[in-house]
Amino acid sequence: MRSAAVVGTGLIGTSVALALTARGVTVYLRDRDDTAVQTAAAMGAGLAEEPPEPVDLAVLAVPPGRIAETLRQVQKAELAHSYTDVASVKEQPLAEVAALGCDLSRYIGGHPLAGRERSGPLAGRAELFEGRPWVLTPSAETGTETLNRALEMVSLCRAVPVVMAPRDHDHAVALVSHAPHLVSALMAARLEHAADTDTRLAGQGVRDVTRIAGSDPRLWIDILGANATAVADVLAGLAADLDTVVGSLRSLAAADVSEREEGSRRVAALLRRGNAGHARIPGKHGAPAAHYEAIPVVIPDRPGELARLFADVGRAEVNIEDIRIDHAQGRPTGLVELQVDPKRAESLTTALRAGGWTVQR
Amino acid sequence: MRSAAVVGTGLIGTSVALALTARGVTVYLRDRDDTAVQTAAAMGAGLAEEPPEPVDLAVLAVPPGRIAETLRQVQKAELAHSYTDVASVKEQPLAEVAALGCDLSRYIGGHPLAGRERSGPLAGRAELFEGRPWVLTPSAETGTETLNRALEMVSLCRAVPVVMAPRDHDHAVALVSHAPHLVSALMAARLEHAADTDTRLAGQGVRDVTRIAGSDPRLWIDILGANATAVADVLAGLAADLDTVVGSLRSLAAADVSEREEGSRRVAALLRRGNAGHARIPGKHGAPAAHYEAIPVVIPDRPGELARLFADVGRAEVNIEDIRIDHAQGRPTGLVELQVDPKRAESLTTALRAGGWTVQR
Repeated sequence: MRSAAVVGTGLIGTSVALALTARGVTVYLRDRDDTAVQTAAAMGAGLAEEPPEPVDLAVLAVPPGRIAETLRQVQKAELAHSYTDVASVKEQPLAEVAALGCDLSRYIGGHPLAGRERSGPLAGRAELFEGRPWVLTPSAETGTETLNRALEMVSLCRAVPVVMAPRDHDHAVALVSHAPHLVSALMAARLEHAADTDTRLAGQGVRDVTRIAGSDPRLWIDILGANATAVADVLAGLAADLDTVVGSLRSLAAADVSEREEGSRRVAALLRRGNAGHARIPGKHGAPAAHYEAIPVVIPDRPGELARLFADVGRAEVNIEDIRIDHAQGRPTGLVELQVDPKRAESLTTALRAGGWTVQR
Repeated sequence: MRSAAVVGTGLIGTSVALALTARGVTVYLRDRDDTAVQTAAAMGAGLAEEPPEPVDLAVLAVPPGRIAETLRQVQKAELAHSYTDVASVKEQPLAEVAALGCDLSRYIGGHPLAGRERSGPLAGRAELFEGRPWVLTPSAETGTETLNRALEMVSLCRAVPVVMAPRDHDHAVALVSHAPHLVSALMAARLEHAADTDTRLAGQGVRDVTRIAGSDPRLWIDILGANATAVADVLAGLAADLDTVVGSLRSLAAADVSEREEGSRRVAALLRRGNAGHARIPGKHGAPAAHYEAIPVVIPDRPGELARLFADVGRAEVNIEDIRIDHAQGRPTGLVELQVDPKRAESLTTALRAGGWTVQR
């Protein structure tokens, strides 16, 4: 790929432009907002001008609702040989693109699974897509050259390409991103009017379950609105399980022994399905989630202590798979939980105790 | 406190005994299983013998269902001047204790919010309760001396005492521990039969929401069984919200504009309630959850890199409030998200970039 055009120089568009420019591609920038283009150009994302001839690939980084009309215009003006977008939903835009009679052979949908709290060109970073999945959703009409151009862009952005059907993509993100977000919000909403003494007992479990409920609703209402049916289908299935669980818990409190046993059996079945689903989430490098052993270490809450801890961990040459910081309630110490390969747990514990650390293992 | 008895030398009982012994208290150990007592004694938890005279405090570390009968027996034998237990539910045991005609003036319920995956005396640790909340649930009959003995035990275990009514305790743990556990399992259960391509798109959000769904069902079925009604009440409220959300999402996909706007309004309202509930969870030291800024750092996946990172963080003298490791899919790099005070974010980013780190900020 020698040349590209980025239409829409917000966070994602500017980041794509920065990445492609960094890899030697000549990038032409375009946005309805001239300030945004000038800002992106000033950041070194590309040229704030029109290409002299059609570019190899045009990336439409505009809102889902504007993809079809934008594609119709740029294809009419022959901006590029191939076209893609970066919207977080794929089925609806494709339907609109087809309805407007765009050239589907030169268009492929795309969705980089990357982002950050901030938005706008100034938030753009060339490294934004590093190691992240980037879904490409070719239609039956998408040509091979267009697919390969998109694949080249993904690898230049150092992302990991994943090819899916538009409908499958939308169901996938509903399942692994949009529904979990609402589930987190639903649990957090239960705490809205909780007593302070109740929330004082909150541990790491509820913190993890409700963490993403702290995100900006304005961003999420757009995402959910564009994929509402797929998300509703996932949550409708969850609602059926939830009704069963509530009924089973009522049975667990019943006087009749056989009813209690039946309730216990059904709650246990749900917990086991939860185990099975949890195990389906890939661990690092796409491998199945490994069962790590948690090494809880008591740590004084002052700068430098984590450095000292990880220096000792480093000397023990043990790879940390995950970390949780469980801040102690009411006293100036915290608990750091190091997730490691169970085979390394004993030697790490010994090494840390030798380093003077209090290991709760 | 000069002397104590621990009845039931499992994980919690042995840990209490180890902590009290470490602080100079003479501890007498008792368990139906003689091996468990011998093991705990061999670990230095206390003496595997009967006390020559009533001890100051007896800690009943037996299952919830056996507390009442055990208390009746040990009070009849005058094992101690005061008695407490460590069960994770409090209302049901108190009712049973009262029904058996035990001396309520010398009994106070207790629940240390601490534990680990492993069980049995060998898993016991004197540091297990360090900085953790320890709920005490006095009844109207509980005498001051018994309350003070329990408070002394909590401080000797270096835990943080929280006094609550038994019913309030059970509702609190239903809300901040038991219900979130089932919510996590319900979401994880949706992933049980997901396609690999779907789960490949899983990010940190769904990982956090479903993390505790990986826990042992056998342990949780007992916990949930003893607090079933309180948990069912929390989940019934969540189920009502969920039905509203599913309906609102269907409206979001409707053709009628005003119906879409109404759906959008209701989903946004739930997301804002999620924000409010999320903010109710105390941050470190019981303070309200602060809004930290996330500093994402790309990190090579090999031993020693975290040490190098935190050494640089330490030199920058910035206190890390929380950490997430978001392992990259399909390539040998990971992303470490450092949560810091927003006022320190810029200086830390500068320091890390100076240290050669790729900061996605």
